[in-house]
Amino acid sequence: MIQRFSFGHPIPTGSVEQVLPLCGGSVPFLTPTAEGWTYRMREDCVVYGLGEMPRGLNKRGWHYIANNTDESHHTEDKLSYYGAHNFLLIRNGEDCFGLFVDFPGKVHYDIGYTRHDTLCFHTEEPDYELYVLSGGDENALCKEFRALIGRSYIPPKWAFGLAQSRWGYKTEEDVREVARQHKANGLPLDMICMDIDYMQGYADFTVNRERFPDLKKLSDELKAEGIRLVPIIDAGVRIDDADATCKEGLEKGYFCKKADGTPFAAAVWPGKAYFADFLRPEVREWFGGRYKVLTDLGIEGFWNDMNEPSLFYTPDRLQAFLDSMAALREKDNIEQEEFFSQVVGGAMGLMNSSEDYASFYHEVNGQKIRHDRVHNLYGGSMTRAAGEAFAKQHPEKRMLLYSRSSVIGSHRYGGIWLGDNNASWGQLLANIQMMPSVQMCGFLYAGADLCGFSSDTTPDLALRWLEFGLLTPLMRNHSAIGTRMQEYYRFPEMLPAIRRMLHLRYALLPYLYSEFMKAALENGSYFRPLAFDYPADPDAREVQDQLLLGEGLMAAPIYTQNAHGRMVYLPEPMKMLRLRSVDDYDEEVLPAGHHNLRCALDEVLLFLRPGCIVPVAAPADNTSQLDDTQLTLWSYLPDGGSAAYRMYTDDGFTTDYDAPEHWRLIRS
Amino acid sequence: MIQRFSFGHPIPTGSVEQVLPLCGGSVPFLTPTAEGWTYRMREDCVVYGLGEMPRGLNKRGWHYIANNTDESHHTEDKLSYYGAHNFLLIRNGEDCFGLFVDFPGKVHYDIGYTRHDTLCFHTEEPDYELYVLSGGDENALCKEFRALIGRSYIPPKWAFGLAQSRWGYKTEEDVREVARQHKANGLPLDMICMDIDYMQGYADFTVNRERFPDLKKLSDELKAEGIRLVPIIDAGVRIDDADATCKEGLEKGYFCKKADGTPFAAAVWPGKAYFADFLRPEVREWFGGRYKVLTDLGIEGFWNDMNEPSLFYTPDRLQAFLDSMAALREKDNIEQEEFFSQVVGGAMGLMNSSEDYASFYHEVNGQKIRHDRVHNLYGGSMTRAAGEAFAKQHPEKRMLLYSRSSVIGSHRYGGIWLGDNNASWGQLLANIQMMPSVQMCGFLYAGADLCGFSSDTTPDLALRWLEFGLLTPLMRNHSAIGTRMQEYYRFPEMLPAIRRMLHLRYALLPYLYSEFMKAALENGSYFRPLAFDYPADPDAREVQDQLLLGEGLMAAPIYTQNAHGRMVYLPEPMKMLRLRSVDDYDEEVLPAGHHNLRCALDEVLLFLRPGCIVPVAAPADNTSQLDDTQLTLWSYLPDGGSAAYRMYTDDGFTTDYDAPEHWRLIRS
Repeated sequence: MIQRFSFGHPIPTGSVEQVLPLCGGSVPFLTPTAEGWTYRMREDCVVYGLGEMPRGLNKRGWHYIANNTDESHHTEDKLSYYGAHNFLLIRNGEDCFGLFVDFPGKVHYDIGYTRHDTLCFHTEEPDYELYVLSGGDENALCKEFRALIGRSYIPPKWAFGLAQSRWGYKTEEDVREVARQHKANGLPLDMICMDIDYMQGYADFTVNRERFPDLKKLSDELKAEGIRLVPIIDAGVRIDDADATCKEGLEKGYFCKKADGTPFAAAVWPGKAYFADFLRPEVREWFGGRYKVLTDLGIEGFWNDMNEPSLFYTPDRLQAFLDSMAALREKDNIEQEEFFSQVVGGAMGLMNSSEDYASFYHEVNGQKIRHDRVHNLYGGSMTRAAGEAFAKQHPEKRMLLYSRSSVIGSHRYGGIWLGDNNASWGQLLANIQMMPSVQMCGFLYAGADLCGFSSDTTPDLALRWLEFGLLTPLMRNHSAIGTRMQEYYRFPEMLPAIRRMLHLRYALLPYLYSEFMKAALENGSYFRPLAFDYPADPDAREVQDQLLLGEGLMAAPIYTQNAHGRMVYLPEPMKMLRLRSVDDYDEEVLPAGHHNLRCALDEVLLFLRPGCIVPVAAPADNTSQLDDTQLTLWSYLPDGGSAAYRMYTDDGFTTDYDAPEHWRLIRS
Repeated sequence: MIQRFSFGHPIPTGSVEQVLPLCGGSVPFLTPTAEGWTYRMREDCVVYGLGEMPRGLNKRGWHYIANNTDESHHTEDKLSYYGAHNFLLIRNGEDCFGLFVDFPGKVHYDIGYTRHDTLCFHTEEPDYELYVLSGGDENALCKEFRALIGRSYIPPKWAFGLAQSRWGYKTEEDVREVARQHKANGLPLDMICMDIDYMQGYADFTVNRERFPDLKKLSDELKAEGIRLVPIIDAGVRIDDADATCKEGLEKGYFCKKADGTPFAAAVWPGKAYFADFLRPEVREWFGGRYKVLTDLGIEGFWNDMNEPSLFYTPDRLQAFLDSMAALREKDNIEQEEFFSQVVGGAMGLMNSSEDYASFYHEVNGQKIRHDRVHNLYGGSMTRAAGEAFAKQHPEKRMLLYSRSSVIGSHRYGGIWLGDNNASWGQLLANIQMMPSVQMCGFLYAGADLCGFSSDTTPDLALRWLEFGLLTPLMRNHSAIGTRMQEYYRFPEMLPAIRRMLHLRYALLPYLYSEFMKAALENGSYFRPLAFDYPADPDAREVQDQLLLGEGLMAAPIYTQNAHGRMVYLPEPMKMLRLRSVDDYDEEVLPAGHHNLRCALDEVLLFLRPGCIVPVAAPADNTSQLDDTQLTLWSYLPDGGSAAYRMYTDDGFTTDYDAPEHWRLIRS
């Protein structure tokens, strides 16, 4: 059951697709406070949700602010990441309920931070809608929530292959070298992502002709090898008289404006840039149409970036900083307070300043609304712009699209990656814990930057992270300029194991793709916490580092440096597979309980649930070569007998998702 | 067996106390490379050591630079912390050996970072000594190493009580309030630390008379309640004509000098400051003598800080930065590269710059030596200055002394705290893993800032961290200005549990103090990895989150948010104690193996090893009230019969450590 409550005069967010009648009367479970709402938690209460946020699967014990932020340091003490995913799922003894706060600005959560036993939340303004979901268990409430917010984005099947990416590929030759090395080393590959350097002066919808003289030819040639190029599109539009996007946007008045009506400018990669007002349908249509510049060159997929939006500085504030430095320069002795607040704090404070976010405006239904009031809609609306345009231009064809910033609602138009993480074991665990959190908010097509984006990865981290990453829908190895090179062929001693793990991914695709499609078409789950399927098992509720994956698998990844195994909890008997490759593995049926299991660096642990089947193909070098007619069936059938598996097979390109002929029943 | 090798013309470091004959011939275990040394690691090879460094007990899988650094962000990707602890202990199949690199500048380690199977290291210059320890197991080699470097510092017994600290206590009233609140809430307390605000203008050996009108009276009155004041001393001496330390140091030429012979100045808390040349014996004697200003006021303990040394900026480089900002101010459009390198990078790069460390000089045996060549000796030499002075002024009396920066050798003069950590669960684990690492390098008196120094702690983290901290020799709750207040009385819902845990600490002191004294007097260990006592057990070698503590206890702390228990590995049968307080606990004898054990937020798990005794006193409100004549004996005697425990009892003040009458044998 979902109850919808409305307070004040909410700004429409587009997050919800089902229109429910408004409820009067009191809100169940919650107690009103002066600011918002509060709820008392028992010692064993678990709070799931919030999507892309720091800390564990259980969000209890910290405070958070939904406030989309370009946060480059993913440490435990952060309050906000790139997405606004205002869905909570609370299990408190017999109480099991969901909350969705439908509000486009900041939402503050205190989940046992001030007091360990108290959950509070409030919106920055008193105008919002609140949905309360109840009357079912964790899985039932998640399904109901997903129905409320609408069907999740479905990418083409090739988007489930490996994507190799790096900020730092500067030329066509850099890109070809990646393809060549993957081939030479027998490493599968489906995508090469192009970061900001392919553009001319970091201007959206341009190609640097010097470094990429013929992008169409490059794209065609790689596609013939089964590899697609996936360019980046940034939110900021380069200010440049000669730039078509800039000119057109200016002429049409499509950019966000300052209070005085002139376009708002801030610096990002191209230097000074304008920001399209994606909240206006006509602007979305226009900007979405601009992607055609690249789709005409054969491009079939994009990643939207910098769309919180990230602002390095505004010219006025930089000027003020430089003025304050000039004043300091005249002083004889600088106090420590001046040094830290003005020099260090001043320089660091230029970026992503709340002052800047309060200095420009959107037009919503003809009304001028200050950006910070609707901040969390921005990135998702950029994704929506592209998604709506693709659906219009190629209604039968799936395009790949994923974004850094997002809001619940934009899950209908694209996937996400989990932002600019870093090469650390802690971030591998964060990847594991964040996957079910973002997926329960609708972002099924998701994944983290494998090996880590910033800082230097290590050979063992690269391999261990892949051993989890081979299960995530988006499987992308991405890194920042200046860090250790981390393409999978850079680790000679790990290469045989990496090759086997990549092949394992492709071999698992019949299962992974089917489970993804079930999750998308039936509002089901792909990754989920153990406690969702075993709500009565207190030990399952404790587990924060194992995940159920679809109907048949449980994953227990290794995320600890130098570990040669781990403890795994089985809520019921399962068949353990300790895989070195798709056809080299140990198997053992284990009883329910805690098990200390070996798992060497080149092995991965997967568990088959009783009565389930996992169809496995032969490995392939890319998705187009995958043969899903010749399947091996993994199963654990404790009572003997047979089982059936609903497998989804289609061409992977067209949008006739619902055609019943895509389903086939496989029997063991 | 220890073999000593010498290369080039080493600068003496004072790290080693035993003078061993030099060995000729080849170095065992290692293969020379162009830069240094290399060693091949098997897959199950474990590398212990490096003291205060990031990552786990096992240092494999990362690279490190011994380069004492004021590092305020303790993330996995850091290469250096505050200490230079160049001792490695390697277990590689049958090979078990130790390495000590005796070198005062940077030492680079690559322990499976470039290649997972290869360890390499080299010194920045080809002048160093290398000690190779072999012919014993982990415990034997650690003992031999400790004998080589000399007896560890022993603090007074009251230093094993609770220390309450915060950067932000500004007045006498702030300090009295802490004492009052501890008393009112029934929380034990032995020390209140005074951070930089007690000084006059952040000048060493001064007291702000306005905010601390009569420090002697305050100290006396608190001491009557069993509480001692522990002020901070910073490395930088405030440049101030009116300041005695500055004047005297200048007159005597005791400060480090620039190439032109004028004193080197850099800004730290007092603004511009000079830096005593602690490498000169006469300067150490002078600076150490200055502590008398405070010991005359009744002070009996100090912490030395900012002694890497930390340098916020030098006036010249700040001027250059401001000049570059002035040039940018004249430009019409600033490129992104200029923004990041000059504005952000420029401001951040002012602090602790390698350029500054290469711009001043020490005098070593009459020779001018550039600071960066002997950088790692600086902090430890400041500690030595104080330690030598105290030994001279009060040869019979122990003084409390611990430092942020350190080098092997300074463990003879003081303890350390583990630097400016932050309030996160990851840092609690880091605390657990760093304790044995620093202790095997001689720093027995050590501990981390409980609850976390920077960022905001939470009630559950405060309690869980205390549950481990109650076992560490230095038990200090310390936090940074601007963070959530975190004195233990600030968490009302946790107060009963916190009180019981603090009382448990005091009750355990007969054991903890005895084990500390054994470790100090007999070069034994206090904390150590499980694998040290069970070297043949491969499961014990995997354990990175449990510690042996002295002869009788094993600790298995909880360091995971929202966990209500954990998996614990027992290498042999032990008796589990699940303690809510010293006299409210569950006990159960458990067989060897892995166990899933409940442990509620207000409980702590300790394990008694077979045949061992742990003497326990009644709780006390401070160490002076502790009665160690009335003891309860915890024991696990699987065969029945009796056991004996060597307990150390003394007055806790005097330095006659070795008097045989301090030992008594307790029989069960």
